[in-house]
Amino acid sequence: MPRWPDPDTKSRSLYDRALNVLPGGVTRVAPWQPPYPVYAQSCKGAWITDVDGNQIFDLINNFASLIHGHAHPAIIDAVTAQLSHGTACTMPTEREVALAELLCERVPAFDKVRFCNSGTEAVMLAVKAARAFTGRPALAKVEGAYHGTYDHVEVSLDSRPENWGNDPNPVAFVAGTPKAVLDDTVILPFNQPEAAARIIREQGARLAAVLIDLMPIYTGCVPATPEFLKAITEAARATGAIVILDEVISFRFGYSGGQGVFGIEPDLTTLAKIIGGGFPVGAVAGKEKIMAVFDHRSGKPAVASTGTFTANMVTMTAGLVGMELMTEEAFDRLNALGDRTRSKLSDAVRRSQYPAQITGHGSIFKIHTHSRPVNDYRSAWSTPEELADLAALQAGLLRRGFLISTKGNGFLSTVMTEAELDSFVDAVEGELRILATQRLLA
Amino acid sequence: MPRWPDPDTKSRSLYDRALNVLPGGVTRVAPWQPPYPVYAQSCKGAWITDVDGNQIFDLINNFASLIHGHAHPAIIDAVTAQLSHGTACTMPTEREVALAELLCERVPAFDKVRFCNSGTEAVMLAVKAARAFTGRPALAKVEGAYHGTYDHVEVSLDSRPENWGNDPNPVAFVAGTPKAVLDDTVILPFNQPEAAARIIREQGARLAAVLIDLMPIYTGCVPATPEFLKAITEAARATGAIVILDEVISFRFGYSGGQGVFGIEPDLTTLAKIIGGGFPVGAVAGKEKIMAVFDHRSGKPAVASTGTFTANMVTMTAGLVGMELMTEEAFDRLNALGDRTRSKLSDAVRRSQYPAQITGHGSIFKIHTHSRPVNDYRSAWSTPEELADLAALQAGLLRRGFLISTKGNGFLSTVMTEAELDSFVDAVEGELRILATQRLLA
Ligand SMILES: Cc1ncc(COP(=O)(O)O)c(C=O)c1O
Ligand SMILES: Cc1ncc(COP(=O)(O)O)c(C=O)c1O
Repeated sequence: MPRWPDPDTKSRSLYDRALNVLPGGVTRVAPWQPPYPVYAQSCKGAWITDVDGNQIFDLINNFASLIHGHAHPAIIDAVTAQLSHGTACTMPTEREVALAELLCERVPAFDKVRFCNSGTEAVMLAVKAARAFTGRPALAKVEGAYHGTYDHVEVSLDSRPENWGNDPNPVAFVAGTPKAVLDDTVILPFNQPEAAARIIREQGARLAAVLIDLMPIYTGCVPATPEFLKAITEAARATGAIVILDEVISFRFGYSGGQGVFGIEPDLTTLAKIIGGGFPVGAVAGKEKIMAVFDHRSGKPAVASTGTFTANMVTMTAGLVGMELMTEEAFDRLNALGDRTRSKLSDAVRRSQYPAQITGHGSIFKIHTHSRPVNDYRSAWSTPEELADLAALQAGLLRRGFLISTKGNGFLSTVMTEAELDSFVDAVEGELRILATQRLLA
Repeated sequence: MPRWPDPDTKSRSLYDRALNVLPGGVTRVAPWQPPYPVYAQSCKGAWITDVDGNQIFDLINNFASLIHGHAHPAIIDAVTAQLSHGTACTMPTEREVALAELLCERVPAFDKVRFCNSGTEAVMLAVKAARAFTGRPALAKVEGAYHGTYDHVEVSLDSRPENWGNDPNPVAFVAGTPKAVLDDTVILPFNQPEAAARIIREQGARLAAVLIDLMPIYTGCVPATPEFLKAITEAARATGAIVILDEVISFRFGYSGGQGVFGIEPDLTTLAKIIGGGFPVGAVAGKEKIMAVFDHRSGKPAVASTGTFTANMVTMTAGLVGMELMTEEAFDRLNALGDRTRSKLSDAVRRSQYPAQITGHGSIFKIHTHSRPVNDYRSAWSTPEELADLAALQAGLLRRGFLISTKGNGFLSTVMTEAELDSFVDAVEGELRILATQRLLA
């Protein structure tokens, strides 16, 4: 069992070294947990061995990107074979064509694909494509939804009761956000069909695109309702704005992505994470007439996109093998495992007598440390006490050898077993019981 | 010898397949060359074998990113060993600390490092850091300089005599660039100390940062003069703007980067390419007080940056091995090879009687198909006839088995030999002689 957060671990001394060369000792915010992060030594399947020799069951899977867990043999074999033939080349390779073919075959709304290196780049590229196609500047996005770190899509990622307003205000997420960015960003309330459609219509001809996620992780991790999806796509099309579906995470919902499951046909889709087989990746896919903004054949393209490591041979190889393993049956099995896990977690919540609740869909779950109905960013909002309980839950699970995100999220992989997930459910129940007792005593 | 652009090659049929699933059949603009690109099968050292079995000497090295050429044994061994321990993990690893330590040890201006996944992300992150630190919105950049695909830094990448103005105008590069982006971007003439300093001073307190490259590839590939660097850094500091040095390419100039060679101390530096050992990478490095915008220790950081594949184990492993191989002696040898190559190329130009010229620095060269003095973007400007000659030269070299960029650039690697480069020089001479004859006949 991890002795984290004891002060005498190897993780602690690595973090002390890191403090000298990385701001705050880390290089990305998401994995941070006070007082110091646990450092990985080796990752295999569903398990991480940390630098102190502890085994930890990994329910984050590098933020939903490792749909086959760590070091899947088929991916490792293919990449190992590729390595001696190079990792990245100026010239294109057959692999980029093959991965694009696989994606276009599976998803009706994908006529063409454009690769890049991250979900952040994919979303930026899709927004630029929308602006180029429509000649309009503004972007609408959902309050609390994360879409990477491009300026406009970060707006209102963490708006708060003091500043979120009635119709959602555009609230700067990073210091120094230019006023122009806020002026060109329109914020929609999640799962509120009338209000969202009205706000879109009010923007009229200013709006280049409406950017949505079928289940934004930070808006409570509840799926978009059919009414919401219908209302905003209709409103978008009525104003001439294009619909960008961010499937960076939700592409793991099914063989034709989340759009296949939820029955929507976006104009553009952004992809990343699972399509790279565990290597850096991003892509924009969509309708012929819009994807044509990237086409260079009649002179300079409207959006000239490139990128040093775009479609590199290793990412394309790993992505192709990883996606080929994701047959329709593999998606069904993974989703069934997700349903089972959420249902068992809900049972554990009930038994624990702690007022938690489980949301999620497909292979994704989220544990909330309150039991109020959750429908959007605001109703998912937690009090400081509830957040403290969530932090205690996450830390307690880590000490029991189970890694979930600090926001309470988990993302399953195809290599997890029911038995492993059952022990995880037991651990959650154990921690919730401790929290329930503490509440009684408080 | 490649039979490109014959219509019956395997490359041609791959491109035909690609046309169905990728806009224009390619996924990045840079490697495109009409009528179709050559597809790589296998890359090793300085050589690419294409899908038709031709051997091609690779002088692009995936746009200057492969400083050891393709599939360097030490990098491949280290990555192969890493693969079975995972490619990317939510938890941090010792490797990210070690690579950051190496960078901070080598470069005096690097107190801290923040990784990301591409040069594009690095530049975006540095601009955001500058805005957060100064509370100001605007960015100054050099006319014609490429810094990736983030909105503001693309401005005036391809301005033309019709629209570039006297003091450089901000000219949109992609269709649909919001007016606000142009308003917040200030364009500087390269290597014109007085004009650039005056433009910076005129902006006064609006300017968050001045973004520069010691030798922008598209401004003629001539180094910045000491007077220019002095004038713009002094002007930037006088207005309170920070200086961001884009070393995505120029970091290959020396053990302490281009800044060590050119003697400048930027506030922030952007890195990518060679620090990833052939895998996707980006980083911002710089002074403690500015890098503190990324620090989460006293609550939410001013710039909360993250990224799914940031500091992934494969990139960190490959980057560390690749950079360790780049000792001071290795930089000296590589730069000497560059000097030798440019000098031999200049001799070949003279012998050919074609009015070309060679510019560049360190391990980088550029062939211009005109002989007017080149000092900046405008003086490097080529006529349509000169561009046609450059295209013919590049295509002719490809048919002889030598790959340079369509802009006439080459980037050497540590595994190239003098003999190989001598045959390249001979090929250039041969092609220039053909062009000289055609000019006489025309
Ligand atoms: C929905 C969504 N969009 C975009 C991104 C950004 O992707 P990346 O981290 O690869 O930049 C993420 C990352 O978590 C995401 O969850
Ligand atoms: C100077 C410079 N900055 C930034 C970039 C963008 O880097 P990337 O292609 O990794 O996004 C490049 C790419 O060529 C570059 O040359």
